[in-house]
Amino acid sequence: MGTQSRSYPTREEQASITDKRLLRGARTRETVLRRAVDVASLEGLEDVSFGRLATDIGMSKAGIQTLFRTKESLQLATIDFARDMFIEAVAGPARNSPHGVRRLRSLIDHWIVYAETPLFQGGCFRVANISYFDSKEGPVRDALFQHQREWYETIGREFRHAVDSGEIAEIDVDLAVFQVDAVLCAANTALRLGDHSAVDKVHRTLDGLLRTP
Amino acid sequence: MGTQSRSYPTREEQASITDKRLLRGARTRETVLRRAVDVASLEGLEDVSFGRLATDIGMSKAGIQTLFRTKESLQLATIDFARDMFIEAVAGPARNSPHGVRRLRSLIDHWIVYAETPLFQGGCFRVANISYFDSKEGPVRDALFQHQREWYETIGREFRHAVDSGEIAEIDVDLAVFQVDAVLCAANTALRLGDHSAVDKVHRTLDGLLRTP
Repeated sequence: MGTQSRSYPTREEQASITDKRLLRGARTRETVLRRAVDVASLEGLEDVSFGRLATDIGMSKAGIQTLFRTKESLQLATIDFARDMFIEAVAGPARNSPHGVRRLRSLIDHWIVYAETPLFQGGCFRVANISYFDSKEGPVRDALFQHQREWYETIGREFRHAVDSGEIAEIDVDLAVFQVDAVLCAANTALRLGDHSAVDKVHRTLDGLLRTP
Repeated sequence: MGTQSRSYPTREEQASITDKRLLRGARTRETVLRRAVDVASLEGLEDVSFGRLATDIGMSKAGIQTLFRTKESLQLATIDFARDMFIEAVAGPARNSPHGVRRLRSLIDHWIVYAETPLFQGGCFRVANISYFDSKEGPVRDALFQHQREWYETIGREFRHAVDSGEIAEIDVDLAVFQVDAVLCAANTALRLGDHSAVDKVHRTLDGLLRTP
């Protein structure tokens, strides 16, 4: 063993080097995607390119390209990353509230904080991108609409629970989900313009849907 | 008079030439703007540039630049042109209906035709552009929001008339306008994806706001 050349690392050393390399790759990936979601929410996913991100974060274009390969993969990874951040900011914390009206209110409250703060520089990621991609078939559009469907299901589940448990009067859940998401998206736009009265309008829309039986 | 050189036109001929030139300029302007509103509704106003339009309609870039001078003037002229087309398609025809509930329903019906047909290749012009410009202060954002305010006022006026004349029960008009516009914008996005159930959801939202006293 003492004769082993030092130019070849041991298996343990090799594993440690691989771990470090993986960690470095993961960190770079996160740095790139953190910037990509801001660019996408401000300028749109079309502006999420290797060159733009390389300039913004001071990395080589080739380095970013190695991590994501194609512009479309980079755009899809950006959508996934935004989705994870959205879940962490909105759906995650709401899980602390019991199903039904309380979780619904928690989801809406967290959504408003998400749009008001905002989590992404340009406000709601989906609102910022769906109007561009809605006319363009392909994986990017599909991923954005998958995100919308998940959100519809998340709030729809709580409306249904509130009706089934007798917390609120019978309503058309599909219509309620459509209306709530519509006013949230409208509020996101109003907030970008500094019109905070839209938040109160969201709450009053929700109140109108949550009438006791 | 018979001695007048034919190389100099008479005052009448000069006027006719000027008219023809003005007419040609106005026609070119219309051709350019007709294409510009489609590009803006599909790709966004950022893509409305002299080069892009020159390629699309087979004109010289310099010719278009002479007519509009700056990219921002071209974008503002595009918004005005879209506004005129919107008024012709939605607000104009609704004027045939008496004020109140009937005009409100006519406005919404024409708006849905406007988004369904669609008048612009990418659907509602405002929805397609507002999410990009809402984070960017300047004349383009101001013009888009002026358009939104006019639309809010148009439907708000009819809601107020319906309440004041006793056609419908008392409602918060500002909230109703916000909700109606929100579901229209959401329906526009749904229609781009081929989801026509959103049209029924718009009508049911409106029905919910137009209850008799």
